[in-house]
Amino acid sequence: MKFSVTHRQARARRGVLTFDRGEVDTPAFMPVGTLASVRSVSPQEVSSTGSQILLGNTFHLMLRPGADVISAHGGLHNFMGWSGPILTDSGGFQVWSLAKKKDIDESGVRFRSPIDGSAVFLEPERSMEVQRVLGSDIVMCFDECTAYPASKTEAEESMRRSMRWARRCRDADLQTSQSLFGIVQGGMFSDLRLESLSALQEVGFEGYALGGLSVGEPKEDMKRILHEVTPSMPEHLPRYLMGVGKPEDLIMGVGSGIDMFDCVLPTRNARNGWLYTRSGVVRLKNAANRLDTAPVDPECPCAACQSFSRSYLRHLYTAGELLGPRLCTLHNLTFFQALMADIRKAIEESRFEDFATGFMASFRGENDDSV
Amino acid sequence: MKFSVTHRQARARRGVLTFDRGEVDTPAFMPVGTLASVRSVSPQEVSSTGSQILLGNTFHLMLRPGADVISAHGGLHNFMGWSGPILTDSGGFQVWSLAKKKDIDESGVRFRSPIDGSAVFLEPERSMEVQRVLGSDIVMCFDECTAYPASKTEAEESMRRSMRWARRCRDADLQTSQSLFGIVQGGMFSDLRLESLSALQEVGFEGYALGGLSVGEPKEDMKRILHEVTPSMPEHLPRYLMGVGKPEDLIMGVGSGIDMFDCVLPTRNARNGWLYTRSGVVRLKNAANRLDTAPVDPECPCAACQSFSRSYLRHLYTAGELLGPRLCTLHNLTFFQALMADIRKAIEESRFEDFATGFMASFRGENDDSV
Repeated sequence: MKFSVTHRQARARRGVLTFDRGEVDTPAFMPVGTLASVRSVSPQEVSSTGSQILLGNTFHLMLRPGADVISAHGGLHNFMGWSGPILTDSGGFQVWSLAKKKDIDESGVRFRSPIDGSAVFLEPERSMEVQRVLGSDIVMCFDECTAYPASKTEAEESMRRSMRWARRCRDADLQTSQSLFGIVQGGMFSDLRLESLSALQEVGFEGYALGGLSVGEPKEDMKRILHEVTPSMPEHLPRYLMGVGKPEDLIMGVGSGIDMFDCVLPTRNARNGWLYTRSGVVRLKNAANRLDTAPVDPECPCAACQSFSRSYLRHLYTAGELLGPRLCTLHNLTFFQALMADIRKAIEESRFEDFATGFMASFRGENDDSV
Repeated sequence: MKFSVTHRQARARRGVLTFDRGEVDTPAFMPVGTLASVRSVSPQEVSSTGSQILLGNTFHLMLRPGADVISAHGGLHNFMGWSGPILTDSGGFQVWSLAKKKDIDESGVRFRSPIDGSAVFLEPERSMEVQRVLGSDIVMCFDECTAYPASKTEAEESMRRSMRWARRCRDADLQTSQSLFGIVQGGMFSDLRLESLSALQEVGFEGYALGGLSVGEPKEDMKRILHEVTPSMPEHLPRYLMGVGKPEDLIMGVGSGIDMFDCVLPTRNARNGWLYTRSGVVRLKNAANRLDTAPVDPECPCAACQSFSRSYLRHLYTAGELLGPRLCTLHNLTFFQALMADIRKAIEESRFEDFATGFMASFRGENDDSV
């Protein structure tokens, strides 16, 4: 993997990640394909939305279908029919968010599978082994996601364990084509975050991520951490803000120098009948859509807006028809990727701040129910 | 609508139905798009399977989204984005099969909506009115589906009421582009079936259908009715066997002179992980598929077989991933349409009986769990 920054405006960066499997324009948004599928859409459709790289979930895939099944296909790309780059997370976040009981010690984490209750052990070496089999282009270190809220002592202990695990990840065997990213932890404490970043840089990774954000903290905390930590992240390597996010958070992240994002929002919200437009979120269940023969966004190039009305999409949603989630997912991914393309163009043309201001002035956000 | 028979072999016919919206090669199989969507697939995908005409359900559509919504779109074609011909059934069969309590008299049927329990009244005139709004290319008469089993007296009374209703349907206003088909009833009694056919011919319709078959009767009964009734159906008009069926039943129907079929089997079975091949049905849940990296059918041109393994499809099915039903539906519709295309070619080349024998010799059917 190569990374080059082609344009800068203030802290915002426009660049290109180059993999054997293709190029990714940054800042980039990665759709989430948890179980070897971006829910409801085909690989070709994901590509048609402008997506160039996907995220896969090691935790989910090792439980279902199991690493042996994906190994039989020569890796995740072949298994799921996606020929572009893939980033896999390490499983650390899912152990934290999905396993009801877990037993963490220096060696790793013991937990019960949420699928069948069987005992599972995940440790840095095992996560690397699974990710090596998955054959992802970017491998994430196995870490512990610090809980929110956490005292400084808790955040420090958790972060330092993650840093020791990061070294074990670096020492594990990966495929030569795979790049390994370190994950900065440290809760809402900037000094711990900077200590974490230094520890990771001492080991040395091909990219650096911010983990443990967007975990329930006030938006001001995320903003502060971004502001205080991102400038110290290596200038020549990609910076990845994990699990973020909402359109306004993507803009905030880019503004502080982030290059990569992932989030389930566009796909999950699509399945709940929430459709993004530049003025805000359209909720299909609203009765106003029942007889509305206009598309969600007449200027949107997605298959849903090109061929179908709000009324039809509302009908599919109300009736639970399987075509509904798919059309809505296509629309939302198209919206997110168009937003990223506009952000990239704005940076190229040195007008990112104006773009951000204009976007925020018209976008009413997700919490305004009036659209 | 025009119908021309271009080839004959024994009783089997090869022909073309010509509509303003396009041609349909017969014998034809119509996928079912109950709620203005062939479940899980897009109109373009339905078309890519070789399907030329769809079936829509008046009963379901009048309840959800309601005729007013479809009227606002100028009809069902625009609403669902399908530009080819559509046949709509009348609602008679669904009243019979879905409404738990119904009160039938000469005027029509009163029942409770299975959606919200509200009172609904359906009569011939109302069914025609809704189908006129739907704008379907072929409109079916509103009839009563005779129960199975039924005594001769029951079958006779039910059939005669349907015949009186058929005249009321003929007297109702339709769009000039719409063709109306009569439905032959009469239970498992050939003399009643022939009486029904005569009564319909006295009124005069653009096509004739056999209703009330594949409702739980032994296969020998359906075969006998087909054999004894089909030859009396008008030679120059299309013949439609409603709600059928399995591959072997399609072949049997064509052999007795049927031109049109519809059935939920390929789409419903797809959602249950049953995939058709020329040797029988592949059940995805079978553990043998877990590590099978081969496609369901290497010779099948569908998107599922071209890009994905049995193992991947099984994973999607097991994990409940939404891409699964879609890929399986594409495969099964492709199988059914390829079967119809082979049937048509065999008739053209005067080798239909050989084709039928060959197909039946290799196809193990749905009840054989060994595939």
